[in-house]
Amino acid sequence: MTDLPTRVTINEDGPREGLQIEPAYVPTADKIALIDALSRTGIAEIQTVSFVNPRKVPQWTDAEQVVAGITLRPGVRYTSLYLNARGLDRALATGRLNVEGGISLSASATFLARNMDMTPERQRETRREMIAVFKGAGVPITKGSVNAAFGCNFEGDIPLAKLLATLDDVFALAAEAEVILDTIGLSDTMGWAMPSQVTRTIGAIRDRHPDQALSLHLHDTRGMAIANAQAGLAMGVADFDTSVGGLGGCPFAAHRGAAGNLCTEDFVLLCHESGIETGIDLDALIEASEMAERIVGHPLPGSVRSGGTLQQIRKRLAAA
Amino acid sequence: MTDLPTRVTINEDGPREGLQIEPAYVPTADKIALIDALSRTGIAEIQTVSFVNPRKVPQWTDAEQVVAGITLRPGVRYTSLYLNARGLDRALATGRLNVEGGISLSASATFLARNMDMTPERQRETRREMIAVFKGAGVPITKGSVNAAFGCNFEGDIPLAKLLATLDDVFALAAEAEVILDTIGLSDTMGWAMPSQVTRTIGAIRDRHPDQALSLHLHDTRGMAIANAQAGLAMGVADFDTSVGGLGGCPFAAHRGAAGNLCTEDFVLLCHESGIETGIDLDALIEASEMAERIVGHPLPGSVRSGGTLQQIRKRLAAA
Repeated sequence: MTDLPTRVTINEDGPREGLQIEPAYVPTADKIALIDALSRTGIAEIQTVSFVNPRKVPQWTDAEQVVAGITLRPGVRYTSLYLNARGLDRALATGRLNVEGGISLSASATFLARNMDMTPERQRETRREMIAVFKGAGVPITKGSVNAAFGCNFEGDIPLAKLLATLDDVFALAAEAEVILDTIGLSDTMGWAMPSQVTRTIGAIRDRHPDQALSLHLHDTRGMAIANAQAGLAMGVADFDTSVGGLGGCPFAAHRGAAGNLCTEDFVLLCHESGIETGIDLDALIEASEMAERIVGHPLPGSVRSGGTLQQIRKRLAAA
Repeated sequence: MTDLPTRVTINEDGPREGLQIEPAYVPTADKIALIDALSRTGIAEIQTVSFVNPRKVPQWTDAEQVVAGITLRPGVRYTSLYLNARGLDRALATGRLNVEGGISLSASATFLARNMDMTPERQRETRREMIAVFKGAGVPITKGSVNAAFGCNFEGDIPLAKLLATLDDVFALAAEAEVILDTIGLSDTMGWAMPSQVTRTIGAIRDRHPDQALSLHLHDTRGMAIANAQAGLAMGVADFDTSVGGLGGCPFAAHRGAAGNLCTEDFVLLCHESGIETGIDLDALIEASEMAERIVGHPLPGSVRSGGTLQQIRKRLAAA
């Protein structure tokens, strides 16, 4: 438990990943307001929009308008999602985003086969093609990642050896491209990870790649995101994707079954109360979470928004 | 991380503690149905009802009728809450409950002063009086506990030294009474605990009392219950209070701010997926959680009820 980092970097995924699954179209002005509210909290990075086919993801038909409308604040990195050359071009054309490349592979061959009609070999080939696109555009390739790293709804458990082999493939693609990856991200895409598994997995990766910075992308499908995050922190992981209000999920009513990312404000509370700096104003973040709940028009997960912070209580007691 | 127990005992607090804060009166038949559903899951212990003043806790006006109506299943311990001789007499009079005594002290003197108009000295005196009542009734005294063990909304942070001093007081009362306590419970009554604090606290208690069995009672006010439970498991704690569906809490609408206990089914999933036995049929437990949600008539916290279990997915994949 002595490996806790002194500071973590939080990448807010709520706007891009969280809003994407909302059944109702979120007005452009609301998307802009939420991103601007988040940027005022001191957060390091916000994934803003998705440059994918608007016919497939109608929520992001207005990606360009949203990026044009946000107020860029110094010190905040504004990123976006792109899956092909067309999307990358759209992101670059905005002239307002931090555009970097990544090499991402799925640890689940069944997921690839069922959902993308693709073999692992073909996936590696598409990554080589995308690496060439990044290089052609002068976009630095900074991050590797493994999706479905801990388990998969189509394949079941992902044994550690399979995750490590997929990670080897990511490193091999990077080596081919003569790229050094800043960070390796492990994504619990379908909410299979358990804390002891996170500990074991990160330990095994550290054994092989002692100096490699790692990041975690955790989903809360079965309520384990915060415990998995704590397991990551205890292993020294200092880079996390999160989602304000747990956007992307709602365990209730028509949204039942959807599960968002690790909730930003709950994770920030955990960090602050564990002596870990985030650079984030938690009270401002809670206000952004309340805004997110108003915007989507249904209850969001996350506990701190309703439970309140310990600092608020301490301040009240000190003033009394 | 190698101290995980092979088996944990779960004390289901949902019926007693969870229903108590519901604003609407839960019909006696529903209370009975919920307790019976829980008893069919294989759970070790259920805290059924509260024998307190019905004017103060109108939800438990029907405590005797509920106890008379439940189907007692072999292997399940049925407990109840009593705070004085009158309550103890009522529990004993049912002839159907496991009746044991405890010695419980608050680590927060401010909480005692503000909410119970009592000094720590006076609280110890009331415990001596209750010990005499237990002894007079031939009721074994088996459990010590410290409430507000990790922090308090009225006092703020509870330093470890204060918790340890309160624990010393519990042991001193037990020694006076010539009682050996089976278990020491630490209660995070107001949801202040953080995982690293749980680790540090249990480590300090183990240093002083290496062979003392410990239990944890965790509230989810700030979303940390499952991470705190994992921290307890990793320190070898094998006895937990939980609440089906996270009963006692609901972060939404009129219930905003209320926060239940550690959710039973989420905790059971964590245990099973970590190789820890609970003796509980998780599918049956999820059905009991769905029943609890129907009974209270509002969304309950907890994730597994909506997110589903990994075993369900594994079975589906194996059958395909």
